[in-house]
Amino acid sequence: MKKAEFQILVYGPGIGNAKVSLNYKGVTLNQAVKVENPNYVFLYVNVSKNAKAGIVPITFTDGTEKFTYNYPLKSRTDNSGALGFNASDVLYLITPDRFVNGNVQNDNWDSVLVNRKSPNARHGGDYEGVKQKLDYMKDLGITTVWLNPIQENKMRGGSYHGYAITDFYQSDPRFGSNEEFKALTKATHDKGMKMVMDMVLNHCGSSHWWMKDLPAKNWINNDGVFLQTNHATVSVMDVHASQTERNTFLNGWFTRGMPDLNQKNPHLATYLIQNSIWWIEYARIDGIRQDTYSYMDFDFLARWNKEVYDEYPDFNIVGETWYNKKTSPAWWQANSVLNKKNPFLKTPMDFSLTFAMQKAFDGETDNGYLGDLFEDIAQDFVYADPYNVLTFLDNHDLGRFSRKEDKDLKRYKQGLAFLLTMRGIPQIYYGTEVLMVGTKEDGDGRLRVDFPGGWPDDKKDEFTPAGRSDKQNEAWDYLRKLLQWRKTSTAINSGKMIHYAPKDGVYVFARIKDDKTVLVVINSSLTDKELKLDRFSDVITGYSSGKDVISSKEIALKQSISIPAKGQYILDLSK
Amino acid sequence: MKKAEFQILVYGPGIGNAKVSLNYKGVTLNQAVKVENPNYVFLYVNVSKNAKAGIVPITFTDGTEKFTYNYPLKSRTDNSGALGFNASDVLYLITPDRFVNGNVQNDNWDSVLVNRKSPNARHGGDYEGVKQKLDYMKDLGITTVWLNPIQENKMRGGSYHGYAITDFYQSDPRFGSNEEFKALTKATHDKGMKMVMDMVLNHCGSSHWWMKDLPAKNWINNDGVFLQTNHATVSVMDVHASQTERNTFLNGWFTRGMPDLNQKNPHLATYLIQNSIWWIEYARIDGIRQDTYSYMDFDFLARWNKEVYDEYPDFNIVGETWYNKKTSPAWWQANSVLNKKNPFLKTPMDFSLTFAMQKAFDGETDNGYLGDLFEDIAQDFVYADPYNVLTFLDNHDLGRFSRKEDKDLKRYKQGLAFLLTMRGIPQIYYGTEVLMVGTKEDGDGRLRVDFPGGWPDDKKDEFTPAGRSDKQNEAWDYLRKLLQWRKTSTAINSGKMIHYAPKDGVYVFARIKDDKTVLVVINSSLTDKELKLDRFSDVITGYSSGKDVISSKEIALKQSISIPAKGQYILDLSK
Repeated sequence: MKKAEFQILVYGPGIGNAKVSLNYKGVTLNQAVKVENPNYVFLYVNVSKNAKAGIVPITFTDGTEKFTYNYPLKSRTDNSGALGFNASDVLYLITPDRFVNGNVQNDNWDSVLVNRKSPNARHGGDYEGVKQKLDYMKDLGITTVWLNPIQENKMRGGSYHGYAITDFYQSDPRFGSNEEFKALTKATHDKGMKMVMDMVLNHCGSSHWWMKDLPAKNWINNDGVFLQTNHATVSVMDVHASQTERNTFLNGWFTRGMPDLNQKNPHLATYLIQNSIWWIEYARIDGIRQDTYSYMDFDFLARWNKEVYDEYPDFNIVGETWYNKKTSPAWWQANSVLNKKNPFLKTPMDFSLTFAMQKAFDGETDNGYLGDLFEDIAQDFVYADPYNVLTFLDNHDLGRFSRKEDKDLKRYKQGLAFLLTMRGIPQIYYGTEVLMVGTKEDGDGRLRVDFPGGWPDDKKDEFTPAGRSDKQNEAWDYLRKLLQWRKTSTAINSGKMIHYAPKDGVYVFARIKDDKTVLVVINSSLTDKELKLDRFSDVITGYSSGKDVISSKEIALKQSISIPAKGQYILDLSK
Repeated sequence: MKKAEFQILVYGPGIGNAKVSLNYKGVTLNQAVKVENPNYVFLYVNVSKNAKAGIVPITFTDGTEKFTYNYPLKSRTDNSGALGFNASDVLYLITPDRFVNGNVQNDNWDSVLVNRKSPNARHGGDYEGVKQKLDYMKDLGITTVWLNPIQENKMRGGSYHGYAITDFYQSDPRFGSNEEFKALTKATHDKGMKMVMDMVLNHCGSSHWWMKDLPAKNWINNDGVFLQTNHATVSVMDVHASQTERNTFLNGWFTRGMPDLNQKNPHLATYLIQNSIWWIEYARIDGIRQDTYSYMDFDFLARWNKEVYDEYPDFNIVGETWYNKKTSPAWWQANSVLNKKNPFLKTPMDFSLTFAMQKAFDGETDNGYLGDLFEDIAQDFVYADPYNVLTFLDNHDLGRFSRKEDKDLKRYKQGLAFLLTMRGIPQIYYGTEVLMVGTKEDGDGRLRVDFPGGWPDDKKDEFTPAGRSDKQNEAWDYLRKLLQWRKTSTAINSGKMIHYAPKDGVYVFARIKDDKTVLVVINSSLTDKELKLDRFSDVITGYSSGKDVISSKEIALKQSISIPAKGQYILDLSK
């Protein structure tokens, strides 16, 4: 590794009182740090370039007592994976408990029983299930899998969502073992796809083993005592925020069940950073999605990003920078001019675009919400890199984009056409392809429903054309066509964007890379439109026609083009 | 002047063919520049520090013809005025045609007759009228008068609003002469108040004298041919904007009646800058409000600001940076980190705050619009200087804040309490103090109604308590109390701000300067609230009570304070 020093957390009754020594060629003990609680000692060990893999004996001596721990020093894994992801990718977000139950043997654990009737209980989905559907995803056109957190959640209710981690180094056995996760990542790579791991460094689950005997009071914010966070995400950048508000935000907890980690404690900070690096090195994941991003200490986050990128320069991290304006994710992005210190985060999440997209395609006669969508994108000048933001119509925390009341697929098609051709790195939530619905009001558990066909006793199998309705197949085929084409389009994958303020209910933008131009035309209005092309001469001059990606029709670029009510074109232009 | 060179535009048949010379101690002709149209010549003349006031003979020779123009070189005016304005001021915006008709002799001019029955005709207001009400304004607590444009608008319809200027160097005679304007400014200064002039450099009126015989085709954008602007204000900063959109925005005209000036023409740019400096020097105005700010060439605007500030460092310019998000005015502000070049504009207009305030005080049980107001202010981190922005509940282009349907003064009082204690430089539109109403739908002419009592034949005189209803007097007295107190409050005039996210319908913020603290509490909800004070300990610790500015009641700062439904406190804190 580039960084020679690593930390070993040692836990045991009175171990903090012991003298520590080790004797191994190329490995030295820099420091053994005692903390408040004598049951812990933090070893900082240096591993030189010429150290060989083997067993490193670490000796603990306390008076006459002596104990040796054989610490395995391993060789580095191969160099596969840790590839990062970018705008040429499409992320498919899976809530692993709710996707496919490929192994019914691992469903029940720690006296928590699977109960598919309860939206908030464990349902049994697992790595094996994800693995079985890699071909399905690949066929759909997905390039990257993002799983909601897969680490151990040994919580009373089962914590099916994974956000209450009780051991940062262990996979939740209901999904499978660490080795099985590693194998899943390998299988994903073998199919030419990538794997993104969801990490939560802001808090742990209240049943985390260390909660019974904390290394130090300040291991947990507010000295381990529950304090409700005020969710004032803007307070960290708000020049008028009171320090009290900011402290309550940063030190407050999400819930009583999620003790808030204090990353200002340097031992904890190092523990968490090393844990991330360990997962990358061990499982060769390609990216990380970091939860509740802004709730953590700024300096810790900057250091965490930097240390990960120091080891894996191509890696990518996306932060959950939830805010309804562009300014906050912009403030969090690496090299932001808005921030006095560099946050080092490559990819923030563009929530304001999500909220704008959710409203924009409802069908209208004027430019209201479509105009808002344009104005949202026009704010990109606040980003250090607007091409490197995560874009999504919905996710596991938001009402699903597809709605029960949508009578046809027009809004669905416009939303996905827009998402998949617009700048940014798009993410799709599992089930989008089969028109899964669910509102926030129904509760989070009902946003994250089981994929029909993912359980042995399911009556319908929506993973297959036969198991889907005609409407679902139309949606699925549409998305597949778009995704498969997207992979091949350099204009979309790495081209710049030029857009035009919506007029008369029609939004037009182009993606351009070298001699490749894609023109996207979205008519959000309820009437057919004849679109004059003279306004777009700066991008279409020299092209005589465009092939619509969906219909494969060749559209001549003359004075104007006709675009049906609530219709869209994605035109691959030709000379 | 700091700048030694000035321009003289010379206009006359064939004058461009003449040889030009001058002979005067300390004055030299740097250049005589011929342009496309031979009827113009632009002289660039250098005036050295030791040049004395006098008559400078400029000789034009064309073959045997010879003509001498005696150009008066004047001494500089005294050093009064040009004071600038800042957050310790309150601007009172007057549409001069609609305020007070102090001189009925100057009402009709250029065959345009006064017609008070038409909302879009001239009504006869003038400088004399403004002058007569200086004591009224001073008594109300105003510190600064801003008049809508006062230059000549020799347009067919009369152009009562003043935004179609037909001679940049002439006052509109219906308001009074140049000398009368200068005298009004002097009278304003004598009362201890300031004067802001409204300038329009983006366009002129179509009856401007030069429109019949342009110096060059490119004097006017789009070569003098009408092209409708697309109002795409964001296009100048939008990284995805097409150059076509940007050009149409910048080169397009507001209306056919307002030819769009091309400030990329260096002679025109210098003409306009010199004109601004001339008005400052001649009339000793204290500030400028610049119209349709973003519609002009960026480099010109930067140069214009810089050259004005070079001569008058204390001066202040506010730009009409109309946009519904903070990012655009932030981009336009001097030293903005969002902008690669320095825009040099000291004071942008905070329109997004206006839109948020217009909604926030409607009375609600949750934090909806009040929360939006907070989030709007929390965006201040995008500004280079959030304390130097113009804040307003309405202006001559927006629906008035007071509404017919407001049954009581609760919303009015909250709006003004907020505006006048919040960070920024507040501006009030004339008539606000007597609850003038008018919606945008009624037409601009009806937002700008005559102040009752301003015309000799008016039946009511709302400038006096006797002419106002009880409700109007209550509003007037409330505003007066606030404004008079505001003048004395250093915490408001120059203090920092700390605010707290609204909870339960109550928004709290503090203004702090040295040992002075003002605490503002606004209960926007429809129910009385008991507000616990522990959240605000960082600003109130050490203070035992606060005197409410309006009621003069002393409020003890114990565990909590009671605040009535839709009520507010402005508490001057004491130890």
